[in-house]
Amino acid sequence: MKENHTHQEPHLNSSDLLKDIVIGMSDGLTVPFALAAGLSGAVNGTGVIILAGIAEIAAGSIAMGLGGYLAGTTEQDHYNSELKREYYEVEHLAEIEKNEVRKCFKEWGLSTEIQEKAVHEITGNKDHWVQFMMKHELGLNEPDPTRAKKSAFNIGASYVAGGLVPLSPYFFTNDSTEGLKFSVIITLICLFIFGYFKSKLTGVNPLSGGLKVMMIGAAAAATAFGITKLIESL
Amino acid sequence: MKENHTHQEPHLNSSDLLKDIVIGMSDGLTVPFALAAGLSGAVNGTGVIILAGIAEIAAGSIAMGLGGYLAGTTEQDHYNSELKREYYEVEHLAEIEKNEVRKCFKEWGLSTEIQEKAVHEITGNKDHWVQFMMKHELGLNEPDPTRAKKSAFNIGASYVAGGLVPLSPYFFTNDSTEGLKFSVIITLICLFIFGYFKSKLTGVNPLSGGLKVMMIGAAAAATAFGITKLIESL
Repeated sequence: MKENHTHQEPHLNSSDLLKDIVIGMSDGLTVPFALAAGLSGAVNGTGVIILAGIAEIAAGSIAMGLGGYLAGTTEQDHYNSELKREYYEVEHLAEIEKNEVRKCFKEWGLSTEIQEKAVHEITGNKDHWVQFMMKHELGLNEPDPTRAKKSAFNIGASYVAGGLVPLSPYFFTNDSTEGLKFSVIITLICLFIFGYFKSKLTGVNPLSGGLKVMMIGAAAAATAFGITKLIESL
Repeated sequence: MKENHTHQEPHLNSSDLLKDIVIGMSDGLTVPFALAAGLSGAVNGTGVIILAGIAEIAAGSIAMGLGGYLAGTTEQDHYNSELKREYYEVEHLAEIEKNEVRKCFKEWGLSTEIQEKAVHEITGNKDHWVQFMMKHELGLNEPDPTRAKKSAFNIGASYVAGGLVPLSPYFFTNDSTEGLKFSVIITLICLFIFGYFKSKLTGVNPLSGGLKVMMIGAAAAATAFGITKLIESL
């Protein structure tokens, strides 16, 4: 059997899809949960809670999905406009741009001799030069042009999926307190599981990560509950 | 008078505070607006809308604020754990890590000779070497440790400020349709202004940017309104 000696670096490289799911589900589990909890503190029936919950899920998923789409296209526009500007600067402000390349190499600890040679080589090819400036002066990577649409859908769908979890118990009862009880139980469990896997993706301790995500949800729900109780008592 | 010949690059460099305000206000203007619009399609009085709106603002600001805080501390933890790993790899997998430095320089278009010399110089200092790998292999910059807390507050407060805009008209009337009318007018105006300045910050066309942000809000509100109308008619 041939052994595989390829060096597999265990660094994080979570896919874009997972990132979108995390973004959408994080708010989707938390905000409708807290909204429903808040309303449970003020109304007895579950009709209004279901109505408000569904309106919130629709609002949140569209706002986040389209917001993600807009962010994606804006990133693309921004990249293109900066690219154009760098080509202009390389053409018309060559000395200044050369100095900026030199500054990069100096920061990385290269000797003056190698700095000069490296600057000479990079600035010898205008495309390489611009690419270098985009990445190292501006910290911009070329965005994937198909990303915005996919991202919009993934984030929106994850928000809906997340939001239906805390809302579902209210469908099965007419008593808001009863609904709240089950909503708290299943949502806190789901928030913990979600936080656990999210933490694994980012390489932090999954147990403490899961607990933190759960506690954010609990804090949001408790605050919303307290505030509506206060309003009702006025 | 001494002339200032410093080269001012007109690239975007929006401050962290502005980024936080954009994050919080973007959702804060949109989601409570759409939620209130959705409920206006199903209830006549404004009491429930105000209650749900305030519960949503509390929920959303805490979820986004604490979410921002958690993201900040996670980024810090992630950076530290990757830093530790890079020091380990530089120590124990030196040849492989050297190759990765070489690959970077190759990608930037340097000749084999300069590649070798640059690799030699960078890998001569372990701290420089690790910093180089963190930035160019992993694309990670050292996060500001005080950022997470400030960011949490700024995002949460911006969400509250944004959310009170669409909700405010409902305080002055008992008729949800009347409230909705004024809410639509002032929120769409605010969304346009917000989108206009946000677009200026990111260097895209402010007029079309403002219109897009406004249309996202309108789409979210119209969908929420339509869905609750549909539920009510069942």
